[in-house]
Amino acid sequence: MTDIQKGWVVIAGLGPGSESMVIPEVHDALAEATDVVGYIPYVQRITPRDGLTLHASDNRVEVDRASHALEMAAAGRRVVVVSSGDPGVFAMASAVFEALEAGPEAWRALEIRVLPGITAMLAAAAAIGAPLGHDFAAINLSDNLKPWALIERRLQLVGEAGLAMAFYNPRSKSRPHQFARALEVLRAACGEETLITFARDVTKPGQELLTVPLREATPEMADMRTVVIVSNRETRRVGPYVYTPRFAPGHQPDHQTGHQSDSKDT
Amino acid sequence: MTDIQKGWVVIAGLGPGSESMVIPEVHDALAEATDVVGYIPYVQRITPRDGLTLHASDNRVEVDRASHALEMAAAGRRVVVVSSGDPGVFAMASAVFEALEAGPEAWRALEIRVLPGITAMLAAAAAIGAPLGHDFAAINLSDNLKPWALIERRLQLVGEAGLAMAFYNPRSKSRPHQFARALEVLRAACGEETLITFARDVTKPGQELLTVPLREATPEMADMRTVVIVSNRETRRVGPYVYTPRFAPGHQPDHQTGHQSDSKDT
Repeated sequence: MTDIQKGWVVIAGLGPGSESMVIPEVHDALAEATDVVGYIPYVQRITPRDGLTLHASDNRVEVDRASHALEMAAAGRRVVVVSSGDPGVFAMASAVFEALEAGPEAWRALEIRVLPGITAMLAAAAAIGAPLGHDFAAINLSDNLKPWALIERRLQLVGEAGLAMAFYNPRSKSRPHQFARALEVLRAACGEETLITFARDVTKPGQELLTVPLREATPEMADMRTVVIVSNRETRRVGPYVYTPRFAPGHQPDHQTGHQSDSKDT
Repeated sequence: MTDIQKGWVVIAGLGPGSESMVIPEVHDALAEATDVVGYIPYVQRITPRDGLTLHASDNRVEVDRASHALEMAAAGRRVVVVSSGDPGVFAMASAVFEALEAGPEAWRALEIRVLPGITAMLAAAAAIGAPLGHDFAAINLSDNLKPWALIERRLQLVGEAGLAMAFYNPRSKSRPHQFARALEVLRAACGEETLITFARDVTKPGQELLTVPLREATPEMADMRTVVIVSNRETRRVGPYVYTPRFAPGHQPDHQTGHQSDSKDT
């Protein structure tokens, strides 16, 4: 907080849908807030109380919503911007900083905090096993804010690098052909037998999980409520689970040398 | 749960360090558990209680630890395997499925659930702003379980693709020269002016955050308690924050057309 006023903005991740996946720090911020700003379905998740004003807005207005939050904070309000998943992953955090950069110089002295959340790809990965247990990339397949040619190039290069990939916004009604093209690029770059998982409404009622080899994947398997995970060539099934080993081929853990760890603890 | 016995394994993420970043579902699992298995410092975070046995083990024994958890579950115990961050991101989940695949066929009928957590890169990103607000990759720089040449190739290809990158296990005492080499590869692939952030002990007491252009980065800025984020070429500073715009150059949001959104809501 600055000395001159007590307003702040917290950009908070509500996770993929289940209330049991919201971190306590988000509830702490909401308890101190005077205002909540966000897309309608996320604001609907907030319990109303005296002293808390809820400002729900439509989608496609992220920067306007962000400017509104910053304006209120500059006027001394304590504002939580609610976002799904993790606000730093294809969500509201960058929009708030875009609005900060475009706004009055004085806004830059405001206290702004980002509270992370469980982003959809990690909830989807957990729901099927551990498909992101080795190197991976997170890619937004929407071409609203980048050219489609760049997206194709990224799929090719990242596939060639052997990383698993998680896709946000895989398919929309306005561009149904593009996800079909993405599947073609992925089959060429990753191989027909590489597993692809479609996770729809993850952690929500009606969650659907489908894993098939890339050769069997069709565009209709995804919509905008789906997060898609393309595994790497080593990803396999064991029992009902899908997981990616921690090791590259030929680098299996060796119990004799003790070099079996690739974890953060090593 | 299977019909023949009630044992289970839950692989739970404890987040980056702060208790305020542990999701409620992890506490629910711990409340029902008979046994907790994990690396010593993570097991130390669990509050002891009657009926709960704590099994702390050293690092570098992930598969042995995982087998122990599965054995106990097969004997009817309710076992939580605790992991830092998100268990599916360079942590215990893949190790448990490796042990499952190597173990007795009967284990495959066990109930195994993965509970996601806030992984270090997302906590670090939130702490400095939103450097992962556009496409990004998560790469483990340890060469214990993959060849160093593959790591270099991944840095080159992913840098060429224009993705931001988060690095786990950036530097160890046993291979101090490798991170210096990684920085060389990154300067060539991403440009000298691209920002790199070193986040040490993120969310813990003594958290340290340092952001510099790649040309000023030195290997000593990282150790095994550091997560490193290399932004993309568009990443910038605004006030004390570091963020990556949601749009590619030339694809700035257009308030007139309403195409300002690249979020999951579109």
